[in-house]
Amino acid sequence: MITMSNFLAIDAGGTSTRAVLVDASGHCFGYGTAGGGNPVSRGIGPALEALVAASERALSGTGAFPSQVLIAMAGASLELPLNSYYDSFSALGLTGNVVIESDLLAAFYSGTFHDDGIALIAGTGAVGARITESHLAEVADGTGWLLGDMGSGFWLGQEVARAVAAALDGRGPATALTPLVMKELDIAFDLQDRTLGRLRAQQQLINKVYERSAIELSRFAPLVFAAIDDPVAQDIIQRAAAALAQTLVAISDGAETDATTMPLVFGGSVLTKGGTVAAAVLEKFAEARGQRLAEPTLVHDGVVGSAVMALKRHGITVDAGVFDRIQKSLSELRD
Amino acid sequence: MITMSNFLAIDAGGTSTRAVLVDASGHCFGYGTAGGGNPVSRGIGPALEALVAASERALSGTGAFPSQVLIAMAGASLELPLNSYYDSFSALGLTGNVVIESDLLAAFYSGTFHDDGIALIAGTGAVGARITESHLAEVADGTGWLLGDMGSGFWLGQEVARAVAAALDGRGPATALTPLVMKELDIAFDLQDRTLGRLRAQQQLINKVYERSAIELSRFAPLVFAAIDDPVAQDIIQRAAAALAQTLVAISDGAETDATTMPLVFGGSVLTKGGTVAAAVLEKFAEARGQRLAEPTLVHDGVVGSAVMALKRHGITVDAGVFDRIQKSLSELRD
Repeated sequence: MITMSNFLAIDAGGTSTRAVLVDASGHCFGYGTAGGGNPVSRGIGPALEALVAASERALSGTGAFPSQVLIAMAGASLELPLNSYYDSFSALGLTGNVVIESDLLAAFYSGTFHDDGIALIAGTGAVGARITESHLAEVADGTGWLLGDMGSGFWLGQEVARAVAAALDGRGPATALTPLVMKELDIAFDLQDRTLGRLRAQQQLINKVYERSAIELSRFAPLVFAAIDDPVAQDIIQRAAAALAQTLVAISDGAETDATTMPLVFGGSVLTKGGTVAAAVLEKFAEARGQRLAEPTLVHDGVVGSAVMALKRHGITVDAGVFDRIQKSLSELRD
Repeated sequence: MITMSNFLAIDAGGTSTRAVLVDASGHCFGYGTAGGGNPVSRGIGPALEALVAASERALSGTGAFPSQVLIAMAGASLELPLNSYYDSFSALGLTGNVVIESDLLAAFYSGTFHDDGIALIAGTGAVGARITESHLAEVADGTGWLLGDMGSGFWLGQEVARAVAAALDGRGPATALTPLVMKELDIAFDLQDRTLGRLRAQQQLINKVYERSAIELSRFAPLVFAAIDDPVAQDIIQRAAAALAQTLVAISDGAETDATTMPLVFGGSVLTKGGTVAAAVLEKFAEARGQRLAEPTLVHDGVVGSAVMALKRHGITVDAGVFDRIQKSLSELRD
């Protein structure tokens, strides 16, 4: 096995990194994890350290050396110092090259081995992509928390906080989200306690939100599901689904073949946990276009897809059998 | 005149500070400006320096000393180190006290001498207040750019940027705002140039927005008026007006007397420049409540109101004559 081609495939996320060692048949025989490996959010040094740590764990005890490395990450288009990446993996025994790929493709290939289709990811951020001949043909949203990421965890969390702020001064309806947010922020909720015309609870909400970084608003996202029968929470969910459906419409409209027959992959906690948002997205797409998309395959990260791409990018055909082998052998390693 | 009561009234804003010296009859006889005087946005030291600089300019050449100081500022509820404020003004010859008041009241009293009414301010932020017996009875919004400030300059600017981001990847309709934003950010707009499935123009929009601080999105607010015939711009304006009308509804619903007969003061560039948003806000309020509010008085800052409060807070009656004298004498000083 040591003399065969061994591919080290790495799914480098913002908060965690997964590395898998896979051979040309799709058999995964080493797996390791580490902290965030995205150079944009973590910085180049710490990100590379995480990649190496996850890789060392994947290689540990296998006696194998990687012949090729593939790293899937957001911001794959950025100018990365590939030299330092190459040097670090050479120290692990790398004999071939380091290739960087998009995390969107890794998510897509975690759900299918086909080279054409659609991926929609809604985690902290939200982005959709149409994949044609194994490449990103069209990307919609993924524009970040200030410009978009419509329907993402951040978006949901901000809408929850806004709905509560509005409920507290009468701009919006009372909502079951208010006591949940108050509890989350440890604020005593007293409708009588008012200073300078403002409820003390609202002033504390303001103080506590601006003490933290903006992106931490995503912590409130799960509350819409905790208050799922509340009309305000339901409205937020429906608007998130409408925005995500709009992203799907944008990327499917440009397809040369019928998008509704393409493989569809859903990723990210907003779409994969519970199923409420995912079902509403599909419903709203059908309303907008009069046709239903294929049943989506749910993926939880991009590690399977990184392994799929590591093989494909080196000319190895990944068919249903190889794809199945990657999934099953990796699943055993992860247990 | 030196032996009479002279009131130093200061309108301390986030980016500029105005100080006026006014006597008990409402005659303004000294005026000075300086940089931002808000301790929350500028820091306590620099903010206090700006207050003193504006005050020195107001006192310069008058031969007068302030017997009382009133400072109007946002965050008036914060725990301020009043001692250092007092020490600084003592150095300018202050014989009496320093009083801190809300900038919302200063804006209100810049438009009326009555002690009951409604103020709606939409500058970079947005806030509404009902004033009862000279105090803030109810405040709505003013919750900042992450939680609200709905219909503010920041809100408008963010909606412009979001609409352009959506137009560039097909999630939203094409809009005349796109070339305006591209020009503002010096981005070459080429619909053919695509990298990794994304228009290069959109990627540059993303890069340039996140390079800057979030609050700088407010720079795009004026573009909705530059593209006023564009349906997307028009929709943003209408949604801003609807949000501001909602704020008005919230603060007027709790009034014990009929809010529609109360003095109404509008401040901030979104409401005072052009008149499009102000007219739409009044229209939407009338639609929501079936009654029209009074014709609003437009105010451009809080310096008149600071002078009004300086007199009122020391037991001096401000009637139509005194109010008129403050406005006219200040206007001559500012020319």
